Amino acid sequence: MPHIPLHPDLPGISALFDYRPETAVPLGQLAEVLLRGPSTLTVGERELIAAVVSNGNECRFCTGSHAATAAETIEGGRPVVDAACAGVDDAPVSAKVKALLRIALAVRESGRAVTDSLVEAARADGATDVELHDTVLIAAAFCLFNRYVDGLGTVAPEDPAAYVEIGKRLAAGGYAGMAGGE
Amino acid sequence: MPHIPLHPDLPGISALFDYRPETAVPLGQLAEVLLRGPSTLTVGERELIAAVVSNGNECRFCTGSHAATAAETIEGGRPVVDAACAGVDDAPVSAKVKALLRIALAVRESGRAVTDSLVEAARADGATDVELHDTVLIAAAFCLFNRYVDGLGTVAPEDPAAYVEIGKRLAAGGYAGMAGGE
Repeated sequence: MPHIPLHPDLPGISALFDYRPETAVPLGQLAEVLLRGPSTLTVGERELIAAVVSNGNECRFCTGSHAATAAETIEGGRPVVDAACAGVDDAPVSAKVKALLRIALAVRESGRAVTDSLVEAARADGATDVELHDTVLIAAAFCLFNRYVDGLGTVAPEDPAAYVEIGKRLAAGGYAGMAGGE
Repeated sequence: MPHIPLHPDLPGISALFDYRPETAVPLGQLAEVLLRGPSTLTVGERELIAAVVSNGNECRFCTGSHAATAAETIEGGRPVVDAACAGVDDAPVSAKVKALLRIALAVRESGRAVTDSLVEAARADGATDVELHDTVLIAAAFCLFNRYVDGLGTVAPEDPAAYVEIGKRLAAGGYAGMAGGE
């Protein structure tokens, strides 16, 4: 049950973007730049970071949505996403992506948990400066989105099929249109 | 010591806005809308929420900057800010602001920590729907900013006078110009 009067047909963050367009615009642009903008990280890798952080924060709506989007966009699909959410060490992803996911999970805990050794390990596995920057900011952004979605008590669909639909839509269309209240 | 090569003369988030203008633009706009846009909460009340959340997250740069900005803008000045950071219950602020600060500190922990009773208490003290929304989003946004600033190891000035200067600048000019790398 939402804490404020939100559109009853809109789940999760869609209802919040509809409620307050003034903040929806920069939040949608931030997601678009980070998750769809030019990057040496694939869309699937970036959505995987979003899913793993949201899973760590136990945000059902964001985990369902970004796990589904990652499943649509990452090589190996859903089993890779489920494995990464269950534990980074055994996930079937590259050493670089594992190292970036460890940094993302540190950010989830606290910015101060990102140690020199986590950063050095990621660099040793090939991570660039911008990849390090974007990993930290994607993880930090989902610490915002997860709290925003759950802090206002938005509705998270029960039906797994709803997330598959969201995943297909976000995989195809990204976030640029979301701030219009789509 | 920053984890990526940042401008050596820029402290905290200024260095990150300079490093990655693509994400600086929506982040600066978000801060401007939330902390300076039209609102029934005063600038001082909103900066106080930012300071109290940043203090809870132990982010030195953001706490110093927003405590100083709140001190410039809130009735009662610095003693009010210091008291609110030390503990909401005894802070010399209105019952409504206390209730909103309790919600902000719940968001800091987790979105799921915002209970119906916290929200009902704020409403009983006069909080509106938009004030509840904005309090949750300001708190969530500082969970992003704090992690971004500390997760990339940005430099936080040691000299308290540096924060007084930042506070005066943010009180007078807000956040709209920051994305230009000011």
